[in-house]
Amino acid sequence: MTSVYGRLFQVSTFGESHGPAVGVVVDGCPAGVRVEVAQIQADLDRRRPGQSRLVTQRQEGDTVEILSGVFEGATTGTPVAMLVRNADQRPGAYDHLKDVFRPSHADFSYLAKYGRRDHRGGGRSSARETVGRVAGAALARRWLSDVYGVEVLAWVQRVHDIDGHVDHDTVTIEEVEASPTRCPDTDAAQRIVEAIEAARRSGDSLGGVVGFVARGVPAGWGEPVFDRLEADLGKGVLSLPACKGFEIGSGFAGTRLTGLEHNDPFIAEDGQPRLVTNNSGGVQGGISVGAPIYGRAAFKPTATIASEQSTVTVEGDDTVLAAKGRHDPCVLPRAVPMVEAMILLTLADHALRQQAYT
Amino acid sequence: MTSVYGRLFQVSTFGESHGPAVGVVVDGCPAGVRVEVAQIQADLDRRRPGQSRLVTQRQEGDTVEILSGVFEGATTGTPVAMLVRNADQRPGAYDHLKDVFRPSHADFSYLAKYGRRDHRGGGRSSARETVGRVAGAALARRWLSDVYGVEVLAWVQRVHDIDGHVDHDTVTIEEVEASPTRCPDTDAAQRIVEAIEAARRSGDSLGGVVGFVARGVPAGWGEPVFDRLEADLGKGVLSLPACKGFEIGSGFAGTRLTGLEHNDPFIAEDGQPRLVTNNSGGVQGGISVGAPIYGRAAFKPTATIASEQSTVTVEGDDTVLAAKGRHDPCVLPRAVPMVEAMILLTLADHALRQQAYT
Amino acid sequence: MTSVYGRLFQVSTFGESHGPAVGVVVDGCPAGVRVEVAQIQADLDRRRPGQSRLVTQRQEGDTVEILSGVFEGATTGTPVAMLVRNADQRPGAYDHLKDVFRPSHADFSYLAKYGRRDHRGGGRSSARETVGRVAGAALARRWLSDVYGVEVLAWVQRVHDIDGHVDHDTVTIEEVEASPTRCPDTDAAQRIVEAIEAARRSGDSLGGVVGFVARGVPAGWGEPVFDRLEADLGKGVLSLPACKGFEIGSGFAGTRLTGLEHNDPFIAEDGQPRLVTNNSGGVQGGISVGAPIYGRAAFKPTATIASEQSTVTVEGDDTVLAAKGRHDPCVLPRAVPMVEAMILLTLADHALRQQAYT
Amino acid sequence: MTSVYGRLFQVSTFGESHGPAVGVVVDGCPAGVRVEVAQIQADLDRRRPGQSRLVTQRQEGDTVEILSGVFEGATTGTPVAMLVRNADQRPGAYDHLKDVFRPSHADFSYLAKYGRRDHRGGGRSSARETVGRVAGAALARRWLSDVYGVEVLAWVQRVHDIDGHVDHDTVTIEEVEASPTRCPDTDAAQRIVEAIEAARRSGDSLGGVVGFVARGVPAGWGEPVFDRLEADLGKGVLSLPACKGFEIGSGFAGTRLTGLEHNDPFIAEDGQPRLVTNNSGGVQGGISVGAPIYGRAAFKPTATIASEQSTVTVEGDDTVLAAKGRHDPCVLPRAVPMVEAMILLTLADHALRQQAYT
Repeated sequence: MTSVYGRLFQVSTFGESHGPAVGVVVDGCPAGVRVEVAQIQADLDRRRPGQSRLVTQRQEGDTVEILSGVFEGATTGTPVAMLVRNADQRPGAYDHLKDVFRPSHADFSYLAKYGRRDHRGGGRSSARETVGRVAGAALARRWLSDVYGVEVLAWVQRVHDIDGHVDHDTVTIEEVEASPTRCPDTDAAQRIVEAIEAARRSGDSLGGVVGFVARGVPAGWGEPVFDRLEADLGKGVLSLPACKGFEIGSGFAGTRLTGLEHNDPFIAEDGQPRLVTNNSGGVQGGISVGAPIYGRAAFKPTATIASEQSTVTVEGDDTVLAAKGRHDPCVLPRAVPMVEAMILLTLADHALRQQAYT
Repeated sequence: MTSVYGRLFQVSTFGESHGPAVGVVVDGCPAGVRVEVAQIQADLDRRRPGQSRLVTQRQEGDTVEILSGVFEGATTGTPVAMLVRNADQRPGAYDHLKDVFRPSHADFSYLAKYGRRDHRGGGRSSARETVGRVAGAALARRWLSDVYGVEVLAWVQRVHDIDGHVDHDTVTIEEVEASPTRCPDTDAAQRIVEAIEAARRSGDSLGGVVGFVARGVPAGWGEPVFDRLEADLGKGVLSLPACKGFEIGSGFAGTRLTGLEHNDPFIAEDGQPRLVTNNSGGVQGGISVGAPIYGRAAFKPTATIASEQSTVTVEGDDTVLAAKGRHDPCVLPRAVPMVEAMILLTLADHALRQQAYT
Repeated sequence: MTSVYGRLFQVSTFGESHGPAVGVVVDGCPAGVRVEVAQIQADLDRRRPGQSRLVTQRQEGDTVEILSGVFEGATTGTPVAMLVRNADQRPGAYDHLKDVFRPSHADFSYLAKYGRRDHRGGGRSSARETVGRVAGAALARRWLSDVYGVEVLAWVQRVHDIDGHVDHDTVTIEEVEASPTRCPDTDAAQRIVEAIEAARRSGDSLGGVVGFVARGVPAGWGEPVFDRLEADLGKGVLSLPACKGFEIGSGFAGTRLTGLEHNDPFIAEDGQPRLVTNNSGGVQGGISVGAPIYGRAAFKPTATIASEQSTVTVEGDDTVLAAKGRHDPCVLPRAVPMVEAMILLTLADHALRQQAYT
Repeated sequence: MTSVYGRLFQVSTFGESHGPAVGVVVDGCPAGVRVEVAQIQADLDRRRPGQSRLVTQRQEGDTVEILSGVFEGATTGTPVAMLVRNADQRPGAYDHLKDVFRPSHADFSYLAKYGRRDHRGGGRSSARETVGRVAGAALARRWLSDVYGVEVLAWVQRVHDIDGHVDHDTVTIEEVEASPTRCPDTDAAQRIVEAIEAARRSGDSLGGVVGFVARGVPAGWGEPVFDRLEADLGKGVLSLPACKGFEIGSGFAGTRLTGLEHNDPFIAEDGQPRLVTNNSGGVQGGISVGAPIYGRAAFKPTATIASEQSTVTVEGDDTVLAAKGRHDPCVLPRAVPMVEAMILLTLADHALRQQAYT
């Protein structure tokens, strides 16, 4: 029950980083959504390792195969299963991790939970699990775009202490993709490249913040009380590996404003209320108001680093670990399509919910 | 489907601020949990308006009545329904809000969603809705305490720019409750009182940050992928009125550390791994590790303020609004038991899930 | 999690037969459904004990109070809570059942499950639990009728070996309600009255079959695979106390036909396919086809009887039990509104699901 | 949301009969269940077409591949994905069905629901969809057997008017599998063979009844109110293609008994209550009592027959159809492992639920 997300637009992901395959079953995608493998593949390629020297050098083609639910180029309304074979498995590369708990990784907690674990590459806790999310979200992206004109975009807002200047109202996908850092601020991007390479050289890693925006969401999505839009967006994004914080609109910084400063006045525009400012982040009372929905997510520095760290073996003895293998010194660039995926899946779910009642 | 929370420990809340009653049905509370009305009432009293001069002066007894699921002082395993009558209704007090959208409130979004709304006091978007959550969480608190020794505690960490110094490892309920601010830092508490009173006098409002900790959670709660403990805790807390951000462990600040600084080394203690530091906030790979789970939530300044604000009428005309009625100039002190409630409900749900598999 | 039904039109029921109250929270009822307490009350009165000499003589007013979710005579889209106080409690009347397991009742199974039980009148296993279902279904009935013109009707088809002749295509609510037996076949109804009274006199009880029809359901409701309309209707009806069988369309009898006899040919009518026969019961491939949906449900004879029966005490000793108290010698007449309730709740849920995708 | 079954032991199936593959993701299988591909394959082989001359001659190897969730021969607690490639696709064989609605099949209802359909072999409404259910249930079977000693068995009870004499308390898998009919009554089995072959020769088809039993289920599984064991078993079984009726214990026949005849007296055995008879079918108040759980399911005659039938084209014109292709003249023998699968999946789910609370 842990790998199923959504109530109406529902994805069920599967697969370990070093098993035969990863993938997803999308149940609840409306019928008639045009499906182009190339579009899904393009989203997967943004998530893929090895795409630039900034990220892990695992070489994985991540070629997606559609197994069901598509007929004559469009969804039929039945489950869409998508499969990506794991190509560049090197299970032996993880033998040195079999008997030791990597600090701040899921090794110990999985063993505590299940009484056993698949030590190869983190198994299910690996970022490779997000392949299924991204593939499923590609369907959501197409449907939300075609039917509602919704556009979802994320970017690297900050790495370590290097902050990008990004206007969430105007930033474009082209600006984001212009740099392998996915930071659309050119100056910051350059410094981020240097910082990531320095971290790699020193056997260390960096964290940071991803910004996101959803444009074109009509007023009325989201639900009162438990399934507020910010609650469900938060859950989706916080379920990503290494994510430790989420905020919408003015977020934590907005708590330093007074009500008079923070409230978003309405003005009439063509007889309709429009927000003058948007500290709300496009959501009021848990429901969208027609303004851009934006926020930020915190990603901790990658846990797997080459430097030596103190830890404990499964037998309970103190030891020292220095990770081998190919790892991201900074997950931020690859986290961008993952954040988009969770925003898209959440919005698609709420779009269907709203359709149910109207 | 919007007012049901949890998968195994499931609460269904109901009620508007100015209707006949608010309440909750708890389905999935284990049998045999001792139920003392006085304990539930005590939690409700912490949430109640009128408890100090700092919060809204609505006088509500908030007397809880148990309607089902309890026999001879303990739960039977069947649904526990709890009811709180609304005593101090003054629906007429809201007539001036009938035709106008309050800025940054749920007036416009509810109307956009449902095509109608109950304008009396915010209806379902009112903080009064949380009565049901707190009552349901009182059962979770008792069960988690009796069976696992889990203790959940929240406090006011910051109001506006007044930051409390609080050690999440040692802070006690007595220290929190010592001040009507619920800030356990005595100096900060005094300045917070002054700031809130100043805000009230000037027709303004303040936001801030609530800190929380859950002690005694064993290793193994939480699930991989979508239902990670931080994702579900985040969803629960972000579903509270006025909450706009959530972080666990080191959160956003932790993204300014490197991996080497941020990782939590293990040391062996009685043959078991123990965290030397706890930047993880007690959760790794989405699963608890046996260390305290802690984090913070951002609450925006109260939207309803006495000062004049520009807004629009339901007919689409520009107007100016100055709210009347009795409102909290700062929701933070009352948000404390609400945050505890969502932490408790989420942990109880995950405790049951873990029991299912062992 | 056991007392919540439905995915989008969701009811959460609560209450024991001899506790303070029973009731329901309806979450997911669309906004704008007109609510008349008298209509809900009328459905509850059909379910109520004491309405005729045929059923149990417990006198319960079953007066419904609406606690939330209704404003100015219509639903607001937020949860509708409804409460019925238990008036005619005589807990002492059940003291003789405290230490003994009634045969074919839920006494032993509840104790085995929960380690404790509320022996008063069966607690949650009592038919009194269905008050919440019927109240919630009254909203579904109104909405389905107003928006889709759907009419749901049930009746007593058979009691013991007395079979009524009823045409599911033409039977009316007036014909059903003309007799306290709720069997619309006048001759059968008279014989059923005599059979039930004879059973009461001899300290015995009778079972039988309830027939049902849903008219006006458009083509397209229901979903492939697990949530087929007959599967969800079956679950709903089989969840009623004493129900041990469910069939749709030709059901078990249809298995004695060949494919050529059983298949429903299509003919064109105004360019649309129409069924010539309806052995399918209005559902093909789990999805409605626009023809009447009809079927039957089996209700076992009431377990609680005045005659002596062999059983066992909670201490594990053999004993003999003769039930006291006021019991239905035949549950069939009162089962009719309960079956309607489950059909209505299930259809409302599937109507919303279909709306979600169109 | 339509292809996901179960709350804790959750399967998500996918795939069309003439697409690339069918399969399942099992989420919530406990860790440590031994997985042998041969055992899963054996269950699939019982479901497979072409296994005898009685069933459709489609030749499908149905070779299962495990994609995730298994490590060193046992489940890890993460999702187990299983894939079966479709080998014997002949999509062209269905071209004559593209523009016509087969009577009593899902052609019209799917088109009405989705506005489009995959006409090849019935798409998702095909019995081929059950491959995923049977594969997932093989894990449930292993777990229930290893941990609880539960055995689930089904058989052909009746085909058309040929009734087998089968004792649900004693029938064995060997007796069931002794005949390709899966009717353990040798005499009836012989007559069923002849009847099915006669039906095939005459271009007709037959229906019937499958019996089932679950032995070794402890007291306490199932939940009050909506998720009664018979309700969930009924939903599971009624979700199978062609199933139109379900009954548990004495079922419809039991409604012809009086309460005194039908009730199951308890006697003390080793200080524990034991049922003298078992008209309850092992379930009382929706909860298991420790006696065998048994019942029956009705399967209508196969809709696809070679004889000519009146129907309508997608353009709305009357026409005559005679199906080509390879079809089962009687689905009953292959329905046996499908019924077992739904019983197993439902019991595994309720076993986990009960574990959650104890």
